[in-house]
Amino acid sequence: MEHDPSAPGPFAPRSVANGILFTDQYQLTMAQLYFHRGLHERPAQFEHFFRTYPNYGSHQAGYCIAAGLDWFLDWMEAARFDESALAPLRAQVDAEGRRVFNDEFCDWLAVNGSFESLTVRAVPEGRVVHPNAPLTVVEGPLAIAQLLETALLNQLNFQTLIATKASRVVEASRSRPVLEFGLRRSADFGANAATRAALIGGAVGSSNVGVSAVMGLDPAGTHAHSMVQAFMALGEGELGAFRAYADLYPESCLLLVDTIDTLGSGVPNAIKVFEELRAKGHEPRGIRLDSGDLAYLSIQAALMLNEAGFEDAAIVLSSSLDELLIFQILSQIDQEAPRYGLDPSSLINRLAMGVGSKLTSSEGHPYLDGVYKLVAIDDDGWQPAIKVSETPAKTPNPGNKDAYRIYDRRGRSTADLLVPFGTELPSEFDLRHSIEPNTRRFLAADAVSEVESLLVEVMIDGRRAVDPFDLAVARERRAHDVERLDPGVRRLVNPHRYHVSLTPDLWDLKQNLVRQARAERR
Amino acid sequence: MEHDPSAPGPFAPRSVANGILFTDQYQLTMAQLYFHRGLHERPAQFEHFFRTYPNYGSHQAGYCIAAGLDWFLDWMEAARFDESALAPLRAQVDAEGRRVFNDEFCDWLAVNGSFESLTVRAVPEGRVVHPNAPLTVVEGPLAIAQLLETALLNQLNFQTLIATKASRVVEASRSRPVLEFGLRRSADFGANAATRAALIGGAVGSSNVGVSAVMGLDPAGTHAHSMVQAFMALGEGELGAFRAYADLYPESCLLLVDTIDTLGSGVPNAIKVFEELRAKGHEPRGIRLDSGDLAYLSIQAALMLNEAGFEDAAIVLSSSLDELLIFQILSQIDQEAPRYGLDPSSLINRLAMGVGSKLTSSEGHPYLDGVYKLVAIDDDGWQPAIKVSETPAKTPNPGNKDAYRIYDRRGRSTADLLVPFGTELPSEFDLRHSIEPNTRRFLAADAVSEVESLLVEVMIDGRRAVDPFDLAVARERRAHDVERLDPGVRRLVNPHRYHVSLTPDLWDLKQNLVRQARAERR
Repeated sequence: MEHDPSAPGPFAPRSVANGILFTDQYQLTMAQLYFHRGLHERPAQFEHFFRTYPNYGSHQAGYCIAAGLDWFLDWMEAARFDESALAPLRAQVDAEGRRVFNDEFCDWLAVNGSFESLTVRAVPEGRVVHPNAPLTVVEGPLAIAQLLETALLNQLNFQTLIATKASRVVEASRSRPVLEFGLRRSADFGANAATRAALIGGAVGSSNVGVSAVMGLDPAGTHAHSMVQAFMALGEGELGAFRAYADLYPESCLLLVDTIDTLGSGVPNAIKVFEELRAKGHEPRGIRLDSGDLAYLSIQAALMLNEAGFEDAAIVLSSSLDELLIFQILSQIDQEAPRYGLDPSSLINRLAMGVGSKLTSSEGHPYLDGVYKLVAIDDDGWQPAIKVSETPAKTPNPGNKDAYRIYDRRGRSTADLLVPFGTELPSEFDLRHSIEPNTRRFLAADAVSEVESLLVEVMIDGRRAVDPFDLAVARERRAHDVERLDPGVRRLVNPHRYHVSLTPDLWDLKQNLVRQARAERR
Repeated sequence: MEHDPSAPGPFAPRSVANGILFTDQYQLTMAQLYFHRGLHERPAQFEHFFRTYPNYGSHQAGYCIAAGLDWFLDWMEAARFDESALAPLRAQVDAEGRRVFNDEFCDWLAVNGSFESLTVRAVPEGRVVHPNAPLTVVEGPLAIAQLLETALLNQLNFQTLIATKASRVVEASRSRPVLEFGLRRSADFGANAATRAALIGGAVGSSNVGVSAVMGLDPAGTHAHSMVQAFMALGEGELGAFRAYADLYPESCLLLVDTIDTLGSGVPNAIKVFEELRAKGHEPRGIRLDSGDLAYLSIQAALMLNEAGFEDAAIVLSSSLDELLIFQILSQIDQEAPRYGLDPSSLINRLAMGVGSKLTSSEGHPYLDGVYKLVAIDDDGWQPAIKVSETPAKTPNPGNKDAYRIYDRRGRSTADLLVPFGTELPSEFDLRHSIEPNTRRFLAADAVSEVESLLVEVMIDGRRAVDPFDLAVARERRAHDVERLDPGVRRLVNPHRYHVSLTPDLWDLKQNLVRQARAERR
């Protein structure tokens, strides 16, 4: 793989790796092949969907939250084959020293190598989404739509993964404030996308200063152990550190109390400083616990704070939190707090959660299995395309399609339905499971309270067709959609399976195409 | 956390999130506190180290590979508080509407807010590293060294994590070529760092076009299922797709054979095209298997290829590979191939591994627990600093230190040793475990073949002090260091524990500081 060092290397500046070359090599070799065969401008349709909910090992998601679209559309608008992107392609040679990408193709890319010719439909950010139903549909010239695959998958898969985890953490936290603290252990600059996705997924804030500014929020954060250490090494101790902090930030005094000994030193010193602060007319914000048994320590710290008259001081919990641990800690507080004469709900109502590494890395399932599949190609009208897999679950649903969500009598979403594009919807539904032939469901007209189209045109011929992104709107979509899920689907562990279905027409089309492909194999 | 919409929002362009504001809020609140107290220019020393090897659940690492330094130093050199970074800070207000960061501090940042005042020592990229020993030591003004923490941890933790996983995959692959294919499911633009780290960790190439160009390599890749699907939908079938590919890329014809039916269609069609190719004077490169039982299919495909006279055609395996699965597949081939009259080593020697999501997400353990701790601060000479944790393993080793690696008689590394900075090394060693008081080891002079210093000065007062990064050198370091590990430490599952030790002096210092801190708590 190493270049001949005597040859002029295709070394490129690092910025080139964030542009249109943020892609897999085979997208380019295929694009050149389509160009060579005169197929490059043939209209084609690709669908992006994921196959399975994240399964974190001991627990798994019953729904996902779509995220990443707005930043992805920004990238699409900016990405193009300018000279800096073409130079590395011109330098690639095969084993015989022949150029991999010829001048004709490179010249075509120089003119046509952008995403201005594509039309994109997508499920809006913040919405609940399910497997095997399209999150994104891309339509345009075959070679160009193909070239979009890698960046689309990378950006939409990752933010959807993190928004999903964040939504679970928020649910486990009983809607107490969740703060994203994961920057230091996130995946390099992917951290910024993680923060954004966590905010869409329901986190109220983040420690990430840059992305908070970009999203129009104030970042969260106070001080670290190192500040206490520095004051200790200089002979002023923990109390000196706390005093210095309260002095400078009297209106936002939240103290980290576990540098030496949480209950023996941190909390008593914090209370001392809070009393001094109150004497000067300021109310303290609270304390942060970052190690030890967080349920036990939060009960003990609450008792000490209450005793000193600081019933309103917040208690921020952090340290390897994820949705399951938060669920356990809150359950432990429910059971233990009364034994100390403390009302569990009053304690829980003063908690906030700082969630880091396990959120921004989606620990347990660190990637979403989203794929981007050719579903139709124009040949005197849309011809459905199929990939036949040995595993039926991996055979995608073919053809140009629409996607709908059906709500039951209670107003809960009960199924997502894929239909051939432009189908007029019936008033009652014969739902065919997309993979299992014997799983069918009938919904009579009076069992359905609403049917809603899921895909929105977000880009038409390379131009944005939607309002500018609004974080508050995306967060509201998430909250509203999650509220309309069946509680069984929201369960953190072993959730109930949501139905994604095909119409009988679409089911038959899929079966026919599979048979046809298998017949042609010889 | 939401800004008052009537207030002038601190909305910032997205580029701001990749600069010096790629940090946690508390770094800035602490920096201002140090500034306010006149401590901001006090010389301080911070150490970056990780606490535990990645544990992937069913298997765990016995060593890590340092990576990320060169790109991190690039970032350090470019990052500074220019007007675009200061504007969001000036806009932050507390509950009373008072600015969080005052003009005095912002003006100081405008002049001093860069990393030009820092000196950095680090373990070079590609080297084997172990827990609780410094990978990076940062020295400089307290406020500035503190401000570096988040970006340093983010960038070095992540690349070290991925280089470690890559090294394990390469070891499991018995040094057959490993190609990194993870871009589509990596963490947004963190994908580029993942590719770079995988290359340092021993991958021979990557599908990532941009980073390959940046690193001076040709990217790897041929075609996807979608190309075969497109030809099927247009009536030319899999064979038509393969012919078109061979026609355009006669010298690099590697065909993906599992779009319809691997052994029933893909391999026979590939052989047909290979025969046509050979008739025109070209040798095919081989096939790629991307689904099904890869051990079984590679044996069957090899038999078919051999029968047709293509004994040299490569077989690339991909589909959810990680080190353990590769180990299992190769073991299965060892046992099964002879039953089909096939020599297992001749089959294994034609294999290459395409490893994607599980490599670039470090599946099973998607973040490294690296930390950045204040170890010393100047107060008439270096004063050691300590953070006392309830968990002894979380109490860092204090003070200004050097790090050495000791090799045994066989030339294998046997321990890393931390010593007070500037200590003259003895000829025999009394090794104290850094956490467990009763674990001691003595190494007589004749048991030691070599003692090597691990940390290199890479930046002096903000200026690079090392040669430009060379991928080949970093890869060679990895291969050489891994070779010098005890085989038990290299084992994929439950590896033997490597020793990281303190000198008796350093052990005593640590115990004294812990006692002192606990005594001061009241």
